[in-house]
Amino acid sequence: MRKLLLAATLLSSFAFAQIQKVEPMFWWKGMKNPEIQILVYGKDISKYNVELSDNIKIKDIQKTENPNYVFVTVNTNEVNKSSFKINIKKKNKIVDSYTYELKNRETNSANRNSFTSKDIVYLIMPDRFANGDESNDSKKELTDKANRQVPDGRHGGDLRGIINNINYIQDLGATAVWLTPVNEDNQKQHSYHGYAQTDLYKIDARYGTNEEYRELSRELNKRGMMLIQDYVTNHWGSLHWLIQDLPAADWIHQFPDGGEKGFKRSNYRTTAQFDSNVSEIDKKEALDGWFDSTMPDMNQANPLVLKYLTQNAIWWIEYAELGGMRVDTYPYNDKEGMAKWVKAITDEYPKFNVVGEAWMHSPAHISYWQKDSKIAEIDNYNSYLPSVMDFPLYNAIPKAVSEEESWDKGMIRIYDNFTNDFLYPNVNNMFVFMENHDTERFNEITNGNVNEYKLGLALISTVRGIPQVYYGTEIGMRGDKSKGDAAIRQDFPGGWKADKQNAFTDNGRTAEQKQFHDFTAKLFNWRKNKEVIHSGKTKHFIPQNNVYVYFRYNDNESVMVIINANPEKQTIKLNRFAEALNGFTSGKDIISDKNLSISQSGEVTIEGKTSMIIELKK
Amino acid sequence: MRKLLLAATLLSSFAFAQIQKVEPMFWWKGMKNPEIQILVYGKDISKYNVELSDNIKIKDIQKTENPNYVFVTVNTNEVNKSSFKINIKKKNKIVDSYTYELKNRETNSANRNSFTSKDIVYLIMPDRFANGDESNDSKKELTDKANRQVPDGRHGGDLRGIINNINYIQDLGATAVWLTPVNEDNQKQHSYHGYAQTDLYKIDARYGTNEEYRELSRELNKRGMMLIQDYVTNHWGSLHWLIQDLPAADWIHQFPDGGEKGFKRSNYRTTAQFDSNVSEIDKKEALDGWFDSTMPDMNQANPLVLKYLTQNAIWWIEYAELGGMRVDTYPYNDKEGMAKWVKAITDEYPKFNVVGEAWMHSPAHISYWQKDSKIAEIDNYNSYLPSVMDFPLYNAIPKAVSEEESWDKGMIRIYDNFTNDFLYPNVNNMFVFMENHDTERFNEITNGNVNEYKLGLALISTVRGIPQVYYGTEIGMRGDKSKGDAAIRQDFPGGWKADKQNAFTDNGRTAEQKQFHDFTAKLFNWRKNKEVIHSGKTKHFIPQNNVYVYFRYNDNESVMVIINANPEKQTIKLNRFAEALNGFTSGKDIISDKNLSISQSGEVTIEGKTSMIIELKK
Repeated sequence: MRKLLLAATLLSSFAFAQIQKVEPMFWWKGMKNPEIQILVYGKDISKYNVELSDNIKIKDIQKTENPNYVFVTVNTNEVNKSSFKINIKKKNKIVDSYTYELKNRETNSANRNSFTSKDIVYLIMPDRFANGDESNDSKKELTDKANRQVPDGRHGGDLRGIINNINYIQDLGATAVWLTPVNEDNQKQHSYHGYAQTDLYKIDARYGTNEEYRELSRELNKRGMMLIQDYVTNHWGSLHWLIQDLPAADWIHQFPDGGEKGFKRSNYRTTAQFDSNVSEIDKKEALDGWFDSTMPDMNQANPLVLKYLTQNAIWWIEYAELGGMRVDTYPYNDKEGMAKWVKAITDEYPKFNVVGEAWMHSPAHISYWQKDSKIAEIDNYNSYLPSVMDFPLYNAIPKAVSEEESWDKGMIRIYDNFTNDFLYPNVNNMFVFMENHDTERFNEITNGNVNEYKLGLALISTVRGIPQVYYGTEIGMRGDKSKGDAAIRQDFPGGWKADKQNAFTDNGRTAEQKQFHDFTAKLFNWRKNKEVIHSGKTKHFIPQNNVYVYFRYNDNESVMVIINANPEKQTIKLNRFAEALNGFTSGKDIISDKNLSISQSGEVTIEGKTSMIIELKK
Repeated sequence: MRKLLLAATLLSSFAFAQIQKVEPMFWWKGMKNPEIQILVYGKDISKYNVELSDNIKIKDIQKTENPNYVFVTVNTNEVNKSSFKINIKKKNKIVDSYTYELKNRETNSANRNSFTSKDIVYLIMPDRFANGDESNDSKKELTDKANRQVPDGRHGGDLRGIINNINYIQDLGATAVWLTPVNEDNQKQHSYHGYAQTDLYKIDARYGTNEEYRELSRELNKRGMMLIQDYVTNHWGSLHWLIQDLPAADWIHQFPDGGEKGFKRSNYRTTAQFDSNVSEIDKKEALDGWFDSTMPDMNQANPLVLKYLTQNAIWWIEYAELGGMRVDTYPYNDKEGMAKWVKAITDEYPKFNVVGEAWMHSPAHISYWQKDSKIAEIDNYNSYLPSVMDFPLYNAIPKAVSEEESWDKGMIRIYDNFTNDFLYPNVNNMFVFMENHDTERFNEITNGNVNEYKLGLALISTVRGIPQVYYGTEIGMRGDKSKGDAAIRQDFPGGWKADKQNAFTDNGRTAEQKQFHDFTAKLFNWRKNKEVIHSGKTKHFIPQNNVYVYFRYNDNESVMVIINANPEKQTIKLNRFAEALNGFTSGKDIISDKNLSISQSGEVTIEGKTSMIIELKK
């Protein structure tokens, strides 16, 4: 055990075993998996006897090399009451006790709905969206204080700000809200992004409370919307209390050459996960290396760690009534551990959707991470992860809509992407997106060109999968990542009382912002009830003159999408599309609201850098 | 039936049924598949009776819409003699007769060896390599006459020229010779490349005779080398006699809009083969469209066509004692037909290797075409094709050895390529190459830089797979494809009597050519008996400072390869490679012939743009 990470400052004031932390703090009756492993933390606690009240049997008790921990497994089916006591005893004398509550579950909790291709996901960085409660901007006990002048500092955005603006999100037509992590991140700097969590059971007080988090979720659910939690299995903040007093050295990956902290940076080459030629050292550094120096790399191969992560995720789903999870830096984790993690969650909630950030560049590699992938099967792996992100599409979109066409440039990039669909086990369960909080903003790449934004948006709104957008892009926000992450995470105008402009309201938006916003709202609201877009098949045609035409269709409906990335007006002869137009005589372009007559000998004219989304009619 | 392609000029002089062609002209006894389908061609021949001598039964007789053909199937097991007669009868009178010979097979023919990863393949364009017989440069009956001044014309190279220079190829260390097609190509122009064949049973007289072709093969076999035939299933020349008088319109793909010729150019988007979103029209144009206007697209879904192609391939293997086949434009064919074609060949010759030109850009797509691919299995397909070409590696090499290193540039391209090896069913059965007759010449891309050539060559000589080189590159030949195909298919210096220089001989080579040549010969000859390179495992390490290190190893041997694409000298600490160096104490760099001491605490210094291939010793 490497002692250097086991600072015991937290406990130094306690002379005898006093229970200082219990996690999960409570649990629920009637879970499919009735067993709960309770972490009990206190100075030298493992040297004491642990007993449960009411003659409840301890199913298993585990101790680690650090005497300050015991892990007590209880079968909740054997508990008849709504709570029991965990007693810490010395020589038959109870020296401390914790009342462990078993709550009743909400109706239909196990069978809850989750995000699907019917939804549109709106990604928010809470510190940068809206400040609904100025009283929590800075907190005495939390180091990083609010200051909007510091690009990488806390700006004061919070859960109340999001709750206050749910109507804005709903009106836009988004139905699911993905927040970057909101658990406590009490690192000294850069804490606003939340990916270095220091308490996994507590909402960061600068965002609000656990109750407010649940309130947000419930407010969304009331509207038929849902909350998606950003879950980080790969790493915690270096100041997390469990990191500061590690139960065992192998809870995190430590490197002998890493000096005091056991730190070694990941080489970030996560192809190591399936590379049959990989060296052990490269693989270890890819997976066990730290994502950042302040982010110790968690060891999901340690069963206690994995159980902690699993129960914590389920705790949040159950407590906050979540509608989904997004998992950070997926391929950096122990993949066998992650398969167990996601399987435990989806065993508990069969409809629950989890999307992993597997940031790779080829469809075969993306496919690898999706449940039941035949490509992962080559490697004897099954991730059990239901949803993945279409990073190859994300890469292609800004180029496709802006560059000049050639054999392999322009809209052919999009066409080529979809020729790989056969590689995926479930194309409908993939995020389709133009950007996120880690990328250059789309409107930056296209230099704020609203027409190119519209092409990209028409695309992600009508192709297979789950559209995901990033706050602010719908009003044309830009941001150059080369200037630092803060540039792509700027405050939403109107989220702060002091803001001169309020883009949350129609009146507050500039004429330019309106162009972005109104197109987005129109398209997203149209998509809401379009089953043919949610789950229809796709038939696409090789782009000609940089015009990409595809159809989404099912037995009842058919939609023809024309995306003209050519700056010039194009006239398209319809006879080429006979196999898809057969039986239809007219259509309505839902973008222009114009009706068209459709005949196989006819043609359609489309302006340069414009798209049409035509609902076909018989 | 579209009559326009059925010109009957060939037959106009015959008043009654006279057998004008029989194909295959003869066959062999004792084939695994005893049945042979014999095409018999003559004016109105289908209106006559066909009988065999010696009471041999006709197993099946097929007629087509064109009366000039009958297809007679015979079970050779039922033939006791070495020949039989095919009699054409009218009212019981024999009006013509053909003596069909059944030859004895060469010993061990069925079990012949074929090219494997033990081999190095030398690709020759016969018209451009060496003119060994000036008497055949032009032929009265063949339109395109020799003229070295015409870039796209015939230059006079021939089989005799290759036979005369076998020693050169052998000394270089290559063990297999792939010739671009040498069957008759009597198209009017551009016939030198041979891909528009007009007779599939006859070597083009400007190259020599069938007998000389077999002589070349036998001369190679004598030396433990072999001949690989370039087979074109996808298209024939428009002037092929069978195209001029089609047995049936559906022997080729014809397009109603194609005018007189039924021609439509392929859209070349062969991803249509597996694209689950593809439109029927795009797929049809990709697969059934013509590769060029002079190359009618054969319909392998027609059983008669498929049988013709299958028997023709087997005929050449058996007749010319071939050691392998390379198949042109693989994904442009009917893939089900091709699976049957290659399976028929490998059923007949179980060790026979066939490599397909599946020119695609992602490893998943390349994998699709290799036998038993799990990726093709997703699409319910099995190509049965044993070998494919590593086009993604080909794309990467020139960039990797010449550009400046970054996160995704330089040698990381090569590393990344090999991280995909798990996708392939058989990585040892892949061509690894820097160029071929359809690509920019490698030395052109690198501006003739011999050091970069050496890096690329060291790479393809030591990674998994079958190295394939293109004639002339080993003496530094260059060629800019943007100036036309002729630029990459220039005459080998010394192949013609008039040549001022003869690069086939050591004395004849310039100092610069020697640098290219001698390095190549040294490496190839070293590789010949290196089982660890032929079939060893690979362990590679993420490039650092643009130095790529990998090991090839088996239970007996280990080779450490260091490729330094950095222009600067690099010193490499060996402790990073401990897992691969364990137990070894010294090594010999077979490039510099220097011995090195190896210790895990030691280091190795390597000059800029240099590689080392170190045989490790215990």
